[in-house]
Amino acid sequence: MSVLAATFLVAAPDQPGLVARLAGFFYDAGLNIVDASNHTDPWADGGPRFFMRLVVDIAGLSSPRAVAALGGSSTRGALEARFGELSAALSAAWSVRYADHVPRVAVVVTRDPACLYDLVLRQRAGELACEIPLVIANHPTLEPVAESFRIPFYCLPVTPETKPEQEKSLLELLVRHDVDLVVLARYMQILSEGFLAAAPPVINIHHGFLPAFQGAKPYHQAHARGVKLVGATAHYATKDLDQGPIIEQDVARVDHTMGPDEMARVGRDVERVVLSRAVRAHLERRVIVEGRRTVVL
Amino acid sequence: MSVLAATFLVAAPDQPGLVARLAGFFYDAGLNIVDASNHTDPWADGGPRFFMRLVVDIAGLSSPRAVAALGGSSTRGALEARFGELSAALSAAWSVRYADHVPRVAVVVTRDPACLYDLVLRQRAGELACEIPLVIANHPTLEPVAESFRIPFYCLPVTPETKPEQEKSLLELLVRHDVDLVVLARYMQILSEGFLAAAPPVINIHHGFLPAFQGAKPYHQAHARGVKLVGATAHYATKDLDQGPIIEQDVARVDHTMGPDEMARVGRDVERVVLSRAVRAHLERRVIVEGRRTVVL
Amino acid sequence: MSVLAATFLVAAPDQPGLVARLAGFFYDAGLNIVDASNHTDPWADGGPRFFMRLVVDIAGLSSPRAVAALGGSSTRGALEARFGELSAALSAAWSVRYADHVPRVAVVVTRDPACLYDLVLRQRAGELACEIPLVIANHPTLEPVAESFRIPFYCLPVTPETKPEQEKSLLELLVRHDVDLVVLARYMQILSEGFLAAAPPVINIHHGFLPAFQGAKPYHQAHARGVKLVGATAHYATKDLDQGPIIEQDVARVDHTMGPDEMARVGRDVERVVLSRAVRAHLERRVIVEGRRTVVL
Amino acid sequence: MSVLAATFLVAAPDQPGLVARLAGFFYDAGLNIVDASNHTDPWADGGPRFFMRLVVDIAGLSSPRAVAALGGSSTRGALEARFGELSAALSAAWSVRYADHVPRVAVVVTRDPACLYDLVLRQRAGELACEIPLVIANHPTLEPVAESFRIPFYCLPVTPETKPEQEKSLLELLVRHDVDLVVLARYMQILSEGFLAAAPPVINIHHGFLPAFQGAKPYHQAHARGVKLVGATAHYATKDLDQGPIIEQDVARVDHTMGPDEMARVGRDVERVVLSRAVRAHLERRVIVEGRRTVVL
Repeated sequence: MSVLAATFLVAAPDQPGLVARLAGFFYDAGLNIVDASNHTDPWADGGPRFFMRLVVDIAGLSSPRAVAALGGSSTRGALEARFGELSAALSAAWSVRYADHVPRVAVVVTRDPACLYDLVLRQRAGELACEIPLVIANHPTLEPVAESFRIPFYCLPVTPETKPEQEKSLLELLVRHDVDLVVLARYMQILSEGFLAAAPPVINIHHGFLPAFQGAKPYHQAHARGVKLVGATAHYATKDLDQGPIIEQDVARVDHTMGPDEMARVGRDVERVVLSRAVRAHLERRVIVEGRRTVVL
Repeated sequence: MSVLAATFLVAAPDQPGLVARLAGFFYDAGLNIVDASNHTDPWADGGPRFFMRLVVDIAGLSSPRAVAALGGSSTRGALEARFGELSAALSAAWSVRYADHVPRVAVVVTRDPACLYDLVLRQRAGELACEIPLVIANHPTLEPVAESFRIPFYCLPVTPETKPEQEKSLLELLVRHDVDLVVLARYMQILSEGFLAAAPPVINIHHGFLPAFQGAKPYHQAHARGVKLVGATAHYATKDLDQGPIIEQDVARVDHTMGPDEMARVGRDVERVVLSRAVRAHLERRVIVEGRRTVVL
Repeated sequence: MSVLAATFLVAAPDQPGLVARLAGFFYDAGLNIVDASNHTDPWADGGPRFFMRLVVDIAGLSSPRAVAALGGSSTRGALEARFGELSAALSAAWSVRYADHVPRVAVVVTRDPACLYDLVLRQRAGELACEIPLVIANHPTLEPVAESFRIPFYCLPVTPETKPEQEKSLLELLVRHDVDLVVLARYMQILSEGFLAAAPPVINIHHGFLPAFQGAKPYHQAHARGVKLVGATAHYATKDLDQGPIIEQDVARVDHTMGPDEMARVGRDVERVVLSRAVRAHLERRVIVEGRRTVVL
Repeated sequence: MSVLAATFLVAAPDQPGLVARLAGFFYDAGLNIVDASNHTDPWADGGPRFFMRLVVDIAGLSSPRAVAALGGSSTRGALEARFGELSAALSAAWSVRYADHVPRVAVVVTRDPACLYDLVLRQRAGELACEIPLVIANHPTLEPVAESFRIPFYCLPVTPETKPEQEKSLLELLVRHDVDLVVLARYMQILSEGFLAAAPPVINIHHGFLPAFQGAKPYHQAHARGVKLVGATAHYATKDLDQGPIIEQDVARVDHTMGPDEMARVGRDVERVVLSRAVRAHLERRVIVEGRRTVVL
């Protein structure tokens, strides 16, 4: 019998017995825990907070032991209902994602092909467990790239005047293509609070080492300041520009011989790696957002 | 009530219910799991293997619930006996260490002060939870360093002829000072198989990036080969020189302008950091040796 | 007047006045030195050795001052002849490359698309100052990739029996396309000594941290050894497998949770960056080979 | 004849012939250039700017050729006068430092011993070519550390009211001990503009990745923001807090399991390495300040 993984993410106020009770829930149902990790954050607002990621094999959901434990049913709905009861008793927030649901990712770009190529090539190489059903852009530049991979390309130009309209179209595309995750792969536009509230999760790559250089032209800022490192930050987009919870960061060394363009070139290598690591962590259901921070289990 | 941590390390053949049963053991006794992490290695020799680290608060060992669960006793011995029964049922190897036992570390050196200073300063700064009751050397050079920290210093010179005798004296010192861990902080001698079999665990820092440059003068080897990185490796000492399980490694960049001495200088910075990270991981009971590899939980 | 750069690389036995005489040569001709760097290696075989890279603006080669200094001629041939005389007096080896000659790079692959995409995308982005007139492979797998960039693709299958013949075809392709540099971008074949003697310079990416893991399946070797870092090495190919002069290396961190495939995935990111840095350094004429080592100016 | 190195640093508006004329100056005097490097910054304010570092062997200053070139004298004064004439013709700023003058470094601390130990140990190991004639502190905590190395220790407590007086005493100490460089090795005080104007160059280590987290408690700021990297910045102190020209930076990885103290521990390792690299670059006369940036040759 092969494995069918269900990944549960749980966040709860810290309390005795959490690991035992969460693990015991699946043990009682005869469902094997394939992978588990947890973390307790003593610095959380409102007191210590517990986080756990459980990857459970639910291939045996219709075994007599599971059916008995779930009150006579072998459906995912029954599993979720019972797990929800336990979570309620623990005051826990939780979510679950099944491995037979392949997440659908929309890549949103402007003109720079580097991150787009990187994401698609990793997806094709099996490094990112997702589908990329569409690429959306506000410029037509990258259409040939999308086409070379046979990915539908949608161009939604935007001006300050048409922004509300354009975001509406963008949202419709996301809904129509049943998108689970939006990746801003160097999309040089700020998304409105309303859009973000309505859209699936959005991961952005900031071409600079947050919080050092926020906003536009970070490499020019970095050069003018004479820094010796440049970096990139992948974060969930929130209404406050470049203030969203950080998922991943990295840096590379620069020196006085490099102008802003050269720094940008070095930075691009960092951006791609950082963005793909963040998307991968999200797709593997490793990231829990806690206030302005993330727990990456 | 304050926390009294007991850290359990467990390694067992992978099987359903391990997390639940191990966590449940402590939950049934009303003992809170402060921290837990686990890993399943599908590539282990002899089939998938499960590793777990559990940090348990045993301050409540004399509570009625614990006493009941442990069969009427509230001693550590009873706890260990019951845990041993569970482990036997799971075919698990295990160990436990209590936070009120401060590990005693012997630092063994030759002439180079860098790693010695580094370890002592970190211990004094509270970064390494241990005592350093003695420094042992085969040269008197570093006696003033040990004295400046008021650490007893033992000089055991060694020649090929006196090596068996010297190792015997070394072993006696370790026994007499009740040493839990030996750190070879640039000790330029190879320890015999017999010594290693009789001694507590020994961590060595290899001033080179294993397995690239084994044996003597790795920086001269690295320079002659024209490498662009130098590194250091901390590993458990085994009878095969530089072949022991690796705990930690790191590298730093070098270039054509550097001679062997300059590469060694860069390498020393890496050595110190790598050695202290490895010692710290060992002292925090995070390291499980599995064949030639380590699991660092 | 715009700049026309000529890049001179010089290697000579160390002797007084080298910088002054080399710089003075161009100053006397009224040719401006745009960039200069030099290095003296005291550890070279046969005594201290001096290396210099001079980027000279030869746009003014037909100015009266230049013509006078070059004995009445304004040709590159005259410049080279005079510089050759100076070099002979200094017992120097030297070479020159002009910016209006765009180097022609053949990318040689097997099945893995990652490095091929990376090189082509960087070339298109202006990061690599070269043309890529052809891709050569021993498998047809990557033909669609080459085609998507409209680069001619040549498939030269190879077996142990047909290897001499295949290398002959390979060499003919390189000659016919006037190739200046061959990049083995994960070409899973060893090139013969005879081929290497006849071919232009060849840069290889070794998917492992030389000299740690030579030969095949380095990630399996790395996993079995339990290393905590994986790396990649770009080097000039020589007849001794993986023993050629190293141009660039880097590493990335791995841990016990990763199997060989996961380590390979992490390693691929390192490989691409390392290979592109090495190719870039070569194309910018920064690399001088000195025995088994390189000087990267 | 042994080498006596004089290191010249030159900064000038870019113009043809600079390398040839500067190198030729020493060649004409028969003085060998041991090491040379230069850089042209096209982004400098006021037009392209040229920087050069020349290490010249002046052991032969009294040779007939040198005496002739320097107008009949063999003194350093004569050398400097002639070099000054050339520099004036090139509108160049310049300085020279001789290897037989060992720079005198004052280490200024508060309570944290890590950077103090690190600097002293590197100086003793020969990694920093300087003397450390005194340690100055505003707290007595580290007196035993200074004493263990037999370095005079001066305690100058400071309050907001006594600050002008204390800085006066500090300055007197620097003058009396003929100090060439002041290193703030975790000195938790801001120096006044007046002090900085009167004092020798001051290098500060900022325990955070500038310009990300300026001011106090950067690790608490970093933790609250949820960053995945912490860093350190060594810079010349200027009147604007943490705004001085950056000499060196580096980072280390942190994660969600670390609290502010743990981040600080990781950061301390970075701080020490970054500070010592910056001090070393300064002592080797590699650093030229250009506005808010540094050129490190």
